[in-house]
Amino acid sequence: MIHETVKVGKNVVLGEGAVIEENVAIGDNVTIGHHAIIKKDTQIGSGVMIGDLTVLGKGTSSNKKMARQPKKAGGPLVIEDGAVIGSNVVIYRDVCLGKGVFVGDMASIRENVTVGEESIIGRSAMVENNTKIGCRVTVQTGCYITADMEIEDEVFIGPCCSTSNDKYMGMGNYQYKGPTIKRGAKIGNNATLLPSVVIGEHAVIGAGAVITRDIPAGKTAYGNPGRVMK
Amino acid sequence: MIHETVKVGKNVVLGEGAVIEENVAIGDNVTIGHHAIIKKDTQIGSGVMIGDLTVLGKGTSSNKKMARQPKKAGGPLVIEDGAVIGSNVVIYRDVCLGKGVFVGDMASIRENVTVGEESIIGRSAMVENNTKIGCRVTVQTGCYITADMEIEDEVFIGPCCSTSNDKYMGMGNYQYKGPTIKRGAKIGNNATLLPSVVIGEHAVIGAGAVITRDIPAGKTAYGNPGRVMK
Amino acid sequence: MIHETVKVGKNVVLGEGAVIEENVAIGDNVTIGHHAIIKKDTQIGSGVMIGDLTVLGKGTSSNKKMARQPKKAGGPLVIEDGAVIGSNVVIYRDVCLGKGVFVGDMASIRENVTVGEESIIGRSAMVENNTKIGCRVTVQTGCYITADMEIEDEVFIGPCCSTSNDKYMGMGNYQYKGPTIKRGAKIGNNATLLPSVVIGEHAVIGAGAVITRDIPAGKTAYGNPGRVMK
Repeated sequence: MIHETVKVGKNVVLGEGAVIEENVAIGDNVTIGHHAIIKKDTQIGSGVMIGDLTVLGKGTSSNKKMARQPKKAGGPLVIEDGAVIGSNVVIYRDVCLGKGVFVGDMASIRENVTVGEESIIGRSAMVENNTKIGCRVTVQTGCYITADMEIEDEVFIGPCCSTSNDKYMGMGNYQYKGPTIKRGAKIGNNATLLPSVVIGEHAVIGAGAVITRDIPAGKTAYGNPGRVMK
Repeated sequence: MIHETVKVGKNVVLGEGAVIEENVAIGDNVTIGHHAIIKKDTQIGSGVMIGDLTVLGKGTSSNKKMARQPKKAGGPLVIEDGAVIGSNVVIYRDVCLGKGVFVGDMASIRENVTVGEESIIGRSAMVENNTKIGCRVTVQTGCYITADMEIEDEVFIGPCCSTSNDKYMGMGNYQYKGPTIKRGAKIGNNATLLPSVVIGEHAVIGAGAVITRDIPAGKTAYGNPGRVMK
Repeated sequence: MIHETVKVGKNVVLGEGAVIEENVAIGDNVTIGHHAIIKKDTQIGSGVMIGDLTVLGKGTSSNKKMARQPKKAGGPLVIEDGAVIGSNVVIYRDVCLGKGVFVGDMASIRENVTVGEESIIGRSAMVENNTKIGCRVTVQTGCYITADMEIEDEVFIGPCCSTSNDKYMGMGNYQYKGPTIKRGAKIGNNATLLPSVVIGEHAVIGAGAVITRDIPAGKTAYGNPGRVMK
């Protein structure tokens, strides 16, 4: 079903059973998978590929227990030219994916997030709200990128890394702050980053490390708790 | 497609291509997403919201290799009033979600599980069978909640925590037992809990800790192996 | 929608809105879920069960940033007799699933992978490309099985284990090599295996261990970094 207000470019291939809601704009040479769901207001650039069974432009939701109620996501989801989105993906409103971004199957990106040009969000990776991801960043399969986090350009985050932003775990009466990962840093697989730590430029974090303090630029840290290698 | 035996309340909004199988009961003011699949016998209370591409009321399945064959799930899936279910979720038969429960996108809950009022099951969290989750519990994004586990009221489990119930790893000739997490305990992100450990009331487990023994009420433990802080 | 070139056996049950593309072959007594998508050339044996909202036979895709561009997956996806595939699963072309294999909900398997008879790929597990998994292997829920990895027969991998194949993290100018897990080895939950480590036959890795070196056959290792128990 395509709503009558939808704008569709040239050479658009639409899968079986795809649902395109009102005010969606689709550029030229776009491919949309079977049973994909493009929710209202979503803007899709030219040459974008969207997999099967993917939801684009989801609104926020919540229940009473949530320490911090999500703001109603105002702006639309914007997907720039040449982005590639996998199958069974869920991306919220108020997200901007830059040119040539890749989002793997089963990944999910919450509201108020930007992902810079050519970055990769791996399969099954989860990105929370209010987070900024730079250009040419790799977020590998299964990573958890918390809310209120900043990832600078050319960072590499290995598979299954976990981050957090909530020092007092669910109390909800203070400022949340995720880690900051500076330009070119590399994080090994299944590493754990605590709230508000800063990983310096080109620092390297070992696989399985638990990082409880800031790591200076250019240094390598590993272990539990993570220590800087001399 | 809606089967003729389905009961539908007032003000129900049904997405494009939603499939509603036989003997489903749907309360008033329910929203069901596009291409959602509500399998037979599922009971949905009033004011429930169900996302796109979600499967509710799945039956069990298995292969020959499984150490423990799952029982055929007898009872239906019951979703109480005001629950909010995300997109691309899979929930089995013989589950009860209490009033106001929130289940994030891509989460999955197996058979013979109860989730108490207002609890949160985060995005991409996996809950195994035969597990009891109390009221006002937070299970954050990407957590793995094993089978045969008990989580009491007001517990907070940070993102990507992992639990297990199988001390001898796949031998299958003994009793499985997951961890018990007592009321108000807090578990840091990416922590690992071994089979049958007991985390006491209001205990705190550090991020990335590996917990191999019981932790007394009110204590804090961290490290690998996890030790209680003096 | 079923393409006219599709071959369908006897007693095939096809869900609502299932999409079957060209040149698919389906054996006898196969069940295919609602809104499942069987992409071109996929070969499905007899007695196979496929869940709802599952994508079978996906082609590869990429963006400019990827250190190693995936090869175009040549061969079709082949699913042998009696395999059971969950809901919301994504499996690529050029994969062979042996007889009686079980793939849990939300799992995903990339191209150029074989899975031996009766093995289990747990819910939400991710298997990368160019990896070989033996017979009667258990890969538990939420595991990350990297590319270029070999898992021999009767291995047990606990929930949420993480592996990697990329020693220099994204540089892309060298040979990738994942771990090798020899016959009958057991890996505890949330363990981390570094690139190219060899876990010997019937070795046991503790939960939460970080394995940076080869572990001899029959030995037990745990901790961070992982050490062999005397």
